[in-house]
Amino acid sequence: MPAIKPDRVLGDLYKLRSFGTYKTGVHRPTFSPEDIAARNWFAEQCTAAGLETSIDGIGNILGKSKASGAKALSGSHLESQNHAGWLDGPLGCVYALEASRAIKEAGGDAGVDVVVFCDEEGHYGSFLGSKSFTGLLKDEDIDKAANRHDGTPMRDALTRAGWNGRPRVQIEPSRYKAFFEAHIEQGDTLESEKLRIGVVTAIVAIWQYSFSATGEQNHAGTTSMTRRRDAGLALVRLLSAIDRRFPEICGPRTVWTTGRITLEPGSHSIIPGRAESLFQLRDADPAVLDRLHAELHTLVDEANRTGRCPIEINVISQSTPAKMDERLMSALDASAERHAPGKHIRMPSGAGHDAQWLARKLPAAMMFVPSIGGISHHWNENTSDEDLVLGAQVFADAIADALKG
Amino acid sequence: MPAIKPDRVLGDLYKLRSFGTYKTGVHRPTFSPEDIAARNWFAEQCTAAGLETSIDGIGNILGKSKASGAKALSGSHLESQNHAGWLDGPLGCVYALEASRAIKEAGGDAGVDVVVFCDEEGHYGSFLGSKSFTGLLKDEDIDKAANRHDGTPMRDALTRAGWNGRPRVQIEPSRYKAFFEAHIEQGDTLESEKLRIGVVTAIVAIWQYSFSATGEQNHAGTTSMTRRRDAGLALVRLLSAIDRRFPEICGPRTVWTTGRITLEPGSHSIIPGRAESLFQLRDADPAVLDRLHAELHTLVDEANRTGRCPIEINVISQSTPAKMDERLMSALDASAERHAPGKHIRMPSGAGHDAQWLARKLPAAMMFVPSIGGISHHWNENTSDEDLVLGAQVFADAIADALKG
Repeated sequence: MPAIKPDRVLGDLYKLRSFGTYKTGVHRPTFSPEDIAARNWFAEQCTAAGLETSIDGIGNILGKSKASGAKALSGSHLESQNHAGWLDGPLGCVYALEASRAIKEAGGDAGVDVVVFCDEEGHYGSFLGSKSFTGLLKDEDIDKAANRHDGTPMRDALTRAGWNGRPRVQIEPSRYKAFFEAHIEQGDTLESEKLRIGVVTAIVAIWQYSFSATGEQNHAGTTSMTRRRDAGLALVRLLSAIDRRFPEICGPRTVWTTGRITLEPGSHSIIPGRAESLFQLRDADPAVLDRLHAELHTLVDEANRTGRCPIEINVISQSTPAKMDERLMSALDASAERHAPGKHIRMPSGAGHDAQWLARKLPAAMMFVPSIGGISHHWNENTSDEDLVLGAQVFADAIADALKG
Repeated sequence: MPAIKPDRVLGDLYKLRSFGTYKTGVHRPTFSPEDIAARNWFAEQCTAAGLETSIDGIGNILGKSKASGAKALSGSHLESQNHAGWLDGPLGCVYALEASRAIKEAGGDAGVDVVVFCDEEGHYGSFLGSKSFTGLLKDEDIDKAANRHDGTPMRDALTRAGWNGRPRVQIEPSRYKAFFEAHIEQGDTLESEKLRIGVVTAIVAIWQYSFSATGEQNHAGTTSMTRRRDAGLALVRLLSAIDRRFPEICGPRTVWTTGRITLEPGSHSIIPGRAESLFQLRDADPAVLDRLHAELHTLVDEANRTGRCPIEINVISQSTPAKMDERLMSALDASAERHAPGKHIRMPSGAGHDAQWLARKLPAAMMFVPSIGGISHHWNENTSDEDLVLGAQVFADAIADALKG
């Protein structure tokens, strides 16, 4: 059994927190000087661990094991959201590196390649690093990508980092038996149920919509209530109907969110002539998604039958749930049971992860450690040292097991 | 009985439409070159009608009758909202001028002074012209006022017009028995009930509020429905409760409007941590306003008892209804009954007007003519020529009557 070294795991995590420290978290956007420094430092650690390491033309790091036997691939991302937490991403990179080191130190011919994807957090696009690695990104996509905060072209950022023009490394699926990614939970399921390890069953699909209601912009004083066609009110009634109906038909872990409501023209004294909202639905079960999708249409149809402001429902995107591999989940279950008996659970991931792209090429698995207070994407994001150490051991052990099978 | 001249009324209205014509309406913001030209032209017409006319230091026009007997004051405004209608304001100015002319032509010693207030439409502030005329505006208020669209200081605009530094004329209440203002209805009450004249009973009060809900900004994928504190949803539930409750307790003509909803940070994948909305209530009856105001607090209290996102209700402004004078209303009723038997109604004004400020100094009255389709603040605003002519006659006749009493 591989034995991870707690000081090495925690030391690497603390070191990564020093790149772009912000309050108790980090501010390390993709290709910021701090992110570039963190990547270069992490690549050096891979090399020091005996991996043949390179950073490619999109900033992805790949550390290849020289082991002669079965190999797994593992990793996550290093950049952060703006002014966010220290573990989201780095945890999965350090766990991958530690698993690689511990499995090598345990002897035998198995090995773990370590991968770090660029821009999982989406400063320049959507999962550009893992899409590049899995062959889903064209050079033109990079040519067009720009930083969504300041507009910097991705090419300029890559040039500044010294990586532009390098070949982009793509996955060799035949080289690996599995992909493993570790991550903080980002929710409070583990903490609230006093559990320590989550074995991810699937990464949920995200279905995104906009609703737009068309009414008649008019004077808020002279237009009687019976005559007015208030697009804002039509939208409020629809959202209220969803709020009443969805809990009756959702799955046990479905989530839905109205992230934005815009009324036009947006003035105190003018009846909104147009109203729009962004709506999102997440679940790992296609049947639940289909049911809720149909219900949205039913509720919009009802609103249009009874109301005076036509509402349109537009589908912005509908992803597919990424199922994790049953054999790998069992390896994680078994490892968790050895190190923390009864303290683990199977659960879906409500957030998207690089693993959802890797799952298209390899059997994939994800493991969660608890997030204190369920906090995520905030500098207060944290996990206890005990959980960080336990997680690294469960993770390495499960990978070693999976490579045996 | 004064006899108005239809061609003169329509001719003056058409002429005013030529200053800043935009589609079938006008674009004539306060102190735009078109507005300045319209004011200068109108002042000339007042002079031509035998009135001693001046434009004062805020752009208000006052044409004083040389009649020796009882006098009334009448008028409205000339500037328009951006890209708006041709009658909102000018109708009341031309009716006042025509009443002055017709009453003079009818002989006798009564007279009508004509007044045109600047900026009723609020490009630089709120009712600056009528507030100046009624002694409610300080020079410093003008020093501070700036165009809300382009930031031009009001002083610069007045200098360009050639009026800056002139004394500001204030009302001599002892000179007048009454103030009369005519206006288009801006709603569809007259049209839908096939009526031709509205006698205004009161200008409604406007009570403005903001609601703000505080929740917890969090990840829209990893935060379970039971754990999340969604400020946007809390606000939607409150607005929905108002929508259900208010129709049960409002007055026959109460109107309420949610003009804006803002969710922060306003992203697809983030549970709103804060939500705010602008809410407005209008009624002419203080008892109705008090009842609905109390109900708003009850609904917010209920929301705070049952919900997880505290909601604050903030009062932005609460005006008082401006009651019109009973004797003057009777004069309008009687005149309407003579010229259009059974085709008139008493009704409140849902919009604010200069008359609400004049009512503080003089017995005041307002008369409405129908708006086709109830359209207002839009270039499609219109009134039939027949109604325009009838209104001018009813108006002049009522003023003549009121001056006799």
